[in-house]
Amino acid sequence: MTLQSALSASYTDLYQITMGQVYFQSGHHNDRAVFDYFFRKLPYGGGYALFAGLGDLLQILEGLRFTEEDLDFLRRNKFAPEYVDYLRDWRFRGTIYAAREGDVVFPTAPVVRVEGGILDAQLIEALLLNLLNFQTLVATKAARIRSVAGDAILMDFGLRRAQGLGGLHATRACLVGGFNSTSNVTAAMQFGVPAAGTMAHSLIQSFGDELTAFRYFAECRPDDCVLLVDTYSTLESGVPNAITVAREMEARGHRLVAIRLDSGDLAYLAKRARAMLDSAGLSYVRIAASNQLDEYVIKSLIDQEAPIDIYGVGTSLVTGKPDAALDGVYKLSYFQETPRIKLSESLSKTTLPGIKQVHRAFNGDNLFAGADVVALADEQKIPGMSHPFEAGKSMSLQTYRLEPLLHKVMEDGRMIEEPVPLDQIASYARERLALLPPEYKRFEFPHVYKVGLSPGLAKLREHMRTELKQAMT
Amino acid sequence: MTLQSALSASYTDLYQITMGQVYFQSGHHNDRAVFDYFFRKLPYGGGYALFAGLGDLLQILEGLRFTEEDLDFLRRNKFAPEYVDYLRDWRFRGTIYAAREGDVVFPTAPVVRVEGGILDAQLIEALLLNLLNFQTLVATKAARIRSVAGDAILMDFGLRRAQGLGGLHATRACLVGGFNSTSNVTAAMQFGVPAAGTMAHSLIQSFGDELTAFRYFAECRPDDCVLLVDTYSTLESGVPNAITVAREMEARGHRLVAIRLDSGDLAYLAKRARAMLDSAGLSYVRIAASNQLDEYVIKSLIDQEAPIDIYGVGTSLVTGKPDAALDGVYKLSYFQETPRIKLSESLSKTTLPGIKQVHRAFNGDNLFAGADVVALADEQKIPGMSHPFEAGKSMSLQTYRLEPLLHKVMEDGRMIEEPVPLDQIASYARERLALLPPEYKRFEFPHVYKVGLSPGLAKLREHMRTELKQAMT
Repeated sequence: MTLQSALSASYTDLYQITMGQVYFQSGHHNDRAVFDYFFRKLPYGGGYALFAGLGDLLQILEGLRFTEEDLDFLRRNKFAPEYVDYLRDWRFRGTIYAAREGDVVFPTAPVVRVEGGILDAQLIEALLLNLLNFQTLVATKAARIRSVAGDAILMDFGLRRAQGLGGLHATRACLVGGFNSTSNVTAAMQFGVPAAGTMAHSLIQSFGDELTAFRYFAECRPDDCVLLVDTYSTLESGVPNAITVAREMEARGHRLVAIRLDSGDLAYLAKRARAMLDSAGLSYVRIAASNQLDEYVIKSLIDQEAPIDIYGVGTSLVTGKPDAALDGVYKLSYFQETPRIKLSESLSKTTLPGIKQVHRAFNGDNLFAGADVVALADEQKIPGMSHPFEAGKSMSLQTYRLEPLLHKVMEDGRMIEEPVPLDQIASYARERLALLPPEYKRFEFPHVYKVGLSPGLAKLREHMRTELKQAMT
Repeated sequence: MTLQSALSASYTDLYQITMGQVYFQSGHHNDRAVFDYFFRKLPYGGGYALFAGLGDLLQILEGLRFTEEDLDFLRRNKFAPEYVDYLRDWRFRGTIYAAREGDVVFPTAPVVRVEGGILDAQLIEALLLNLLNFQTLVATKAARIRSVAGDAILMDFGLRRAQGLGGLHATRACLVGGFNSTSNVTAAMQFGVPAAGTMAHSLIQSFGDELTAFRYFAECRPDDCVLLVDTYSTLESGVPNAITVAREMEARGHRLVAIRLDSGDLAYLAKRARAMLDSAGLSYVRIAASNQLDEYVIKSLIDQEAPIDIYGVGTSLVTGKPDAALDGVYKLSYFQETPRIKLSESLSKTTLPGIKQVHRAFNGDNLFAGADVVALADEQKIPGMSHPFEAGKSMSLQTYRLEPLLHKVMEDGRMIEEPVPLDQIASYARERLALLPPEYKRFEFPHVYKVGLSPGLAKLREHMRTELKQAMT
C-alpha cells in the first residue's frame, strides 16, 4: 500500500471535471488534443532545472480511476448523470512524450507533451502539475547541493519541516538530485535507499549524563553508531565522551562510525573535533554536520576546508527554499487537427502552438552546447533558431549535433517500458549534469542556456498571432 | 479510504526508532516522559500564528501501527528481534494536552504537551512536527489573507503548485484560517466544503471563439456558471461576450454567477468590468480575481477599491510563502519524575524544564491582553511574569484574568472527545482572532505579544542551569 495508490481521479481541480462535461456534452471529448508542460522561470536564480516526478506521474496515471465516492460527490454537485456514468469507466488513455526523468531542462521548452482525447488530457492537468512542479523544484535544489558537496554523503533530514505528506515526494526528488539517504523510514522503504539517522538531544537529556547515553547507544547500534556531541558542550564534553566510547567499542571489536555536530560554528568545531579524533587514533571516525544547511552554507564550509564527511540537510531542501514552488504550466497547443495559441500582451506569455519536439545541441566535445531548440515535431531540418521573445536575435545550429529530448513514455494510458528504478534515474541525472558546462552551474549570475524557436515554429506562431489579431479587430 | 489512513508508524525519522531501541533495551521505555511542542519564530514577520493540524494528528495517532513490511525493514536494518517484536503490538498510549485547534498562539510557549512512556512520546516526534508545523504555517497565511479580505469569498486554488500530497493538508489549513472553498476535489470531499472552479483558457482555445465556448459552458453549468474573460482581451472580448451570454441565460431563467479575471491590472480591469456589467443591468454578476495573489496584493486591491467579490489564491497560500516552513520543535522537559533541560550558549535556545501549562491574560474588556505566561502545571498563583530571555524585564499580571490554553485531548492514546468538525474549528479561529487587538494583526511591525515565565518556572530554569553548569566544570 503506497500513499499514491490511495489517490483517486478526484485529486484534481474541479474545473478540469467541469470542462470535461462541456467537452462531453458537446460531443468533443474524444477530439485529439495536445498539451505542453513547461515552466517559465528557473528556480533559485540558477542556470538549470533537474526534471523529476515523471515516474510517479506515470504510475499514478495507469491506475487512476474515479471511486464511487467521487461519483456520488459529482452527482450531488449537479454534474450531468450521463457524464458521471461516463466517468465511472474512465481511465486515462492518452499518449505521453517526455524528457527523461533526471535530464537537465530549461524554461520555455516543453518538458512533457500529452496527447489524447481532450477530456483525458484535461483531467490530468492538476495532478501532473502537482507532481512535476514540486519534484523538479526539489531535485534541482538537491543537485545544487550535490554540485558543491563533492563526494560527501548527503542525507535528507527534512521530514519534520516538510509540507505534510509532500515530504515523501520531496525525498524521492532529493534522491534523483544526488542525495544518498533519508531519515524518513517510510520513504527509505518505498525508494529502496538507506534510512539515516542517529539520536536526538532528548536521548542524552533522558539519561542525564552524556557518557552513559553514548554507552547505551553504542551497545544497541554497534555497527552504525553515530553520536550527537553538542548537547552540553561539543568540545569539552561531547567529543571527549565520544572518544571514550569509541575506544570501548574498539575493545569490543567495533568501530564508531561518526560524530554529529548540530549547532555552533560548524567549520571551527569540525576542525577541532577532527584534530581531537585524530590525536586519539580515531581517524576513521567521520564527522557529520547538520543545522540549517543549504547549498550556500555547505559551499562556505567546503571553502573553509571544514573536515565534514556527511551533511544532513532539512528544511531548505524539502521545501525548495526560497522558491517553494516551480511555476510550471500546462497549455493547449493543438486541437482538432489545428494548432492552438493563447495570446497575451507580452510575447513571453503567448503560448507556442503546434505539436512540438525539443532538440538539444551538442558540441564537438559531446557536451551540451548551451542551446535547446523547440521545433515542430515533423520539422526535418533545423539549421538555426531564433530568440523566442526578442526579435532579430538568432543563432546558427549548423555545427552542432541535435538530439531529441522528448521520448514516448506512455501510449493508450500504459507505460511503454517498466518504471525506471530510482537509482538509475539518479545515475542519469549525474551523467546529464556532467555534460552541462560549469558556467551554467554556478550560483551567481549563471550563464543563460539559450532556448530558441526553429524556423517552422517561429513562422507558425507569427502567422497565428497575425491572424488572431486581425480576427479581433 | 483517506490518504492519512495509508500512513504507518514508519512515517517517522529513523532516529526515533533507534532511540526507542536504546530505551527498550535499557528497560526505560515505559518511564514517563514529557515533551513540549513549540516554535521560536512567528511566520511572515507577523504578530501571531494560528494553530492547526491537531485534528489530523490525533486521528492518525489513534490508528498508528507498524505494518509487517515496516517490521521486516527494521529486522533487515539490524534492529534487535525482541524490540521489533515489541513494535509489532505497539500503539501510541500517551496523553496529550494541547491548545485548541484554531487558537492564536505565540513563540516560546508550548502549544502541545505530550506525556507518556518515553518510547511512545519519542516515536511520534517527526509525525507531530510534520503535521503541526505545516498546517500552522498555512492556517496563519490564510488568516492573514482573511484579515484583509473582509467578507469576500476566498478560494484555495493551490493544488497545482502545492508540495505534492501536502496540497491536502494545505487545503485543510486554509479552511481553518478562514477560506471558503477549494479547487481540489479530493480535499473538498474530505473536508466537506464546496469545490470551487470554473474553466481554463484551454476551453476557450479549444472552441476557438470565446462566445461559443461561453455558450457551451453556460448550458452545462446553468446554476454555477463563472466565465473566464481574459483569454483574448478582457475588456474588448471577454466581458462583452460574458454579457451576451448572461442575457441569454436570463432569457432561460438562469443567472450568470461571476466573471473571472486572471491577468493584467486587476484593479483597473475589475472597475471597468464592474461598470460594463452594471450598465448592462447585470449588477448581480460578481467579479472573481486570481493570479499570484497574496495578503499584500489583496490589501492593495481593496485599498484601491477594486470591486472584487471573490479571490482565488494559490501558490503563496499553500506553500506558506515566503517562509515555507514553521520552525516548530519538540523538546524533552521531564523524565523519570525529574525536570529536564537542554542548555545552549544562547538562553533563547535553552529549553524550558518541567511539566508546564500556558495561561493567557484577558483584560477588562475580555480581549487578549497581550500576555501569555508559561507556568509549571501545578503552579497555583501567578502574580506576574518575567521576560524569558532578557534579565530584569517583568510584568504584573494582577489585574488580568488568566485562562489556561492547554487542554487534555488524548488519554492512553484515545481521543477524549469526538473529532471537532472543521467548520467548528474555523469558527473558533474566527472568535479567537476577534479577541486579538488589531495592533498584533497589522503586517508592518506588528506589536509583539509578550510571552513570559511564571515565578516558579523562572526559578526552576535558573536552578537547573546553575546546577548543570557547575556539574560540567
